Amino acid sequence: MIIAEFAIFPTSEGASASRYVKRALEAIRTTGIRYETGAMATVMEAESLDEIFEAVKRAHEAIVSMGVKRIHIDLRIDHRLDKEISIASKKRAIQ
Amino acid sequence: MIIAEFAIFPTSEGASASRYVKRALEAIRTTGIRYETGAMATVMEAESLDEIFEAVKRAHEAIVSMGVKRIHIDLRIDHRLDKEISIASKKRAIQ
Amino acid sequence: MIIAEFAIFPTSEGASASRYVKRALEAIRTTGIRYETGAMATVMEAESLDEIFEAVKRAHEAIVSMGVKRIHIDLRIDHRLDKEISIASKKRAIQ
Amino acid sequence: MIIAEFAIFPTSEGASASRYVKRALEAIRTTGIRYETGAMATVMEAESLDEIFEAVKRAHEAIVSMGVKRIHIDLRIDHRLDKEISIASKKRAIQ
Repeated sequence: MIIAEFAIFPTSEGASASRYVKRALEAIRTTGIRYETGAMATVMEAESLDEIFEAVKRAHEAIVSMGVKRIHIDLRIDHRLDKEISIASKKRAIQ
Repeated sequence: MIIAEFAIFPTSEGASASRYVKRALEAIRTTGIRYETGAMATVMEAESLDEIFEAVKRAHEAIVSMGVKRIHIDLRIDHRLDKEISIASKKRAIQ
Repeated sequence: MIIAEFAIFPTSEGASASRYVKRALEAIRTTGIRYETGAMATVMEAESLDEIFEAVKRAHEAIVSMGVKRIHIDLRIDHRLDKEISIASKKRAIQ
Repeated sequence: MIIAEFAIFPTSEGASASRYVKRALEAIRTTGIRYETGAMATVMEAESLDEIFEAVKRAHEAIVSMGVKRIHIDLRIDHRLDKEISIASKKRAIQ
């Protein structure tokens, strides 16, 4: 499993971004990927980079379709190849 | 309030980082800052950048004291000046 | 144009990462994407998210093929829709 | 040496951020820290986290003083303890 932390928001539409973030989350949901929302980002769990990039692309398209002028994306990925990891296992490991 | 997302880990000590992250979290706890741990990062809530930087410094010192050779830090900060925000309010806003 | 800042490195193979980063850069070069290397990351200039993700995937595959146990990726993307931007125009704008 | 990559910009003031970034860079310059500007971020070279945080704080204060409503900060830090690094040595290592 690959775990990714993803944030996307417009930087051109004034201080409030929540209506854009909500649409991005709806778009992520359509992919069927496992994810958890947080205060600063959404954490996703996937079998491949392709699955993560598909979710990012759908979130991006959703915000583009709302007519914004500028979009910022932050994506951090943790890919462990020596053993299986998941959102749950990573949380357990630090408790 | 300023909300920050913070990750710190050694990149020099082999694949597993959880024992270092646990010590970093213990160090954050000593500051009294409000925080929430997640799979990819810790989200902190503070009145000032100074409070956040103090938490980062203690986490960093904790990992340095374990004798590692190289440390990576990721810090993302959201500072809203037009209204009060918190970890809780940011989560509510996107539901 | 979409401008992306990209860093990739193993966190499992000891303190030195340069031989992995070099291979990642060779893989990026095979895409034909315009990019600039820096001390902390590589900045890429593309027409679409797909081009950027293709470069990230090739860099990732190059490092996977070297037999590492864990890989960290940081990707930040700036997509401006109201006017053309480039690596060069962004640098000029802040001079 | 500690190498840091730092980006700061308002997300509340419309699509163009360059006048804010310029002021942030002027504030960084007042610290005397060694830094290099890039298309997506500024790379800084320091002896301690304190020096880096001082630069971030001055950049932040400069943008706060311009009356913005919301500020985003991205900071990535690479601290190597087993040998001396610099912006120049990191660039050489990947050539």
